[in-house]
Amino acid sequence: MALDDPDHFTALAARYADQPHPQNIGWNATIAGQLAHRSVRAYLPDALPEGTIETLVAAAQSAPSSSNLHLWSVVAVTDQDLRSRLAVLARNQRHIEEAPLILLWVADLARTHEIGLREGTATEATGYIESFLTAVLDAGLAAQNAAVAAESLGLGTVFIGALRNQPEAVAELIGLPERSFVVFGLVVGRPDPDRLAAIKPRPAQEIVLHRNRYIGAPSARAIRGFDVASRSFQESQGLPPTGWVAPLLARMADGQSLGGRDRLREALGRLGFPLL
Amino acid sequence: MALDDPDHFTALAARYADQPHPQNIGWNATIAGQLAHRSVRAYLPDALPEGTIETLVAAAQSAPSSSNLHLWSVVAVTDQDLRSRLAVLARNQRHIEEAPLILLWVADLARTHEIGLREGTATEATGYIESFLTAVLDAGLAAQNAAVAAESLGLGTVFIGALRNQPEAVAELIGLPERSFVVFGLVVGRPDPDRLAAIKPRPAQEIVLHRNRYIGAPSARAIRGFDVASRSFQESQGLPPTGWVAPLLARMADGQSLGGRDRLREALGRLGFPLL
Repeated sequence: MALDDPDHFTALAARYADQPHPQNIGWNATIAGQLAHRSVRAYLPDALPEGTIETLVAAAQSAPSSSNLHLWSVVAVTDQDLRSRLAVLARNQRHIEEAPLILLWVADLARTHEIGLREGTATEATGYIESFLTAVLDAGLAAQNAAVAAESLGLGTVFIGALRNQPEAVAELIGLPERSFVVFGLVVGRPDPDRLAAIKPRPAQEIVLHRNRYIGAPSARAIRGFDVASRSFQESQGLPPTGWVAPLLARMADGQSLGGRDRLREALGRLGFPLL
Repeated sequence: MALDDPDHFTALAARYADQPHPQNIGWNATIAGQLAHRSVRAYLPDALPEGTIETLVAAAQSAPSSSNLHLWSVVAVTDQDLRSRLAVLARNQRHIEEAPLILLWVADLARTHEIGLREGTATEATGYIESFLTAVLDAGLAAQNAAVAAESLGLGTVFIGALRNQPEAVAELIGLPERSFVVFGLVVGRPDPDRLAAIKPRPAQEIVLHRNRYIGAPSARAIRGFDVASRSFQESQGLPPTGWVAPLLARMADGQSLGGRDRLREALGRLGFPLL
């Protein structure tokens, strides 16, 4: 444990802001990279170095896959017109147009179904929510490995969950077959150093970490601590100082507050996921 | 791109075995660590270094969280009796008992619901599949960051999806409240060097990677290539040489073939996820 490494203290202070946080953590280049993560929403137009997509896919594939099933795919979108259309579908997030690459992470039961057809075998289990969940998790773990790899190479990333606002339109745009679904996108590019966001604070560990048994919801004090830290961060970035709790509860109020994603179940049905 | 680094060729050859694979990938300690990933199912009984849990949680929290909602928790189980019970629930996976730690990754809408109760606000959106999916993905990205951090410290890991065989029993064991669900476990410990598995091959990139548009299912040649690579790996490890396609199709045949997880939807309903 690198207690004498000054970077390590700076990184923890940035990650937890004024909240209580551990001091005695393990430290190396990989963990330093992870702790330095920030989502990047402002990119230079620079092309990516040759081999970047293949590197990120190799890292993604090196993540574990449930029972060695590999129920995911990735669509690497570099085409400018497709990126512009995706930006519109994701509620006009300009960075999707601006960065040279967006990786679309696909929960892919279509490949298994097609292999089953070729072998003359039924693949009815693709209709169950367990298979959907496995595919989503395979895609998620792969995507996070790709994000970590990209950042280790000095690139910036941001996940785009807003592609779930219009799943059928996204699927149509990239020609997805039935039984496949874009879980989210991952924008990759060179961060614009003049428009770099700061590191966003996370909840104190006591808010998310339980030991041996779930200890119930966090104390009002801990929640207030994260709310205050969030507000300070927002102010420092010129964002509306809403804190954490107010936007969380606004988002979770009811179906309407999901901004269209209250119809995700219906959309998944149309995309070939009955979710039995 | 470190074309002259011999490690880089060895790592790619191990990851893709005899299948076609890229040569020109980015290379650094983080990517080398990711490419060297293998699931570890044989551990020494050694205690973990002080601060390990806090390190892994700091890495996990540094992963992106959808819309800054933080809809996940982690239960760090070190208690020997609890680990033994979890091992039984996960179809007697002995490594859960053997290793000193299993992290249980929780899709946690209970915390949001409790905060809503305190603030006198409805949180009806917690009932939608979109919120469940967001929580699952938050937990998944966090868990993968923890796994990468653990491996960077020389520790071994293995994900335990089999905890989804009996979700209610797992929830009861660790006292989970309604609206929370263990997505999977992550065993962490010191690998037993005398029982170390080899690096398991992955499908050639052409099987999972599409460019701009989804290109349809992979060629029979590519699938055969991965099937052969899988069989060689299995033989080298003294495992039944089943390849990839046969177990994939056996698992995906029908509800029965999901080994009890065909009732996941019902279990999620009981745990407080109506999945609207």
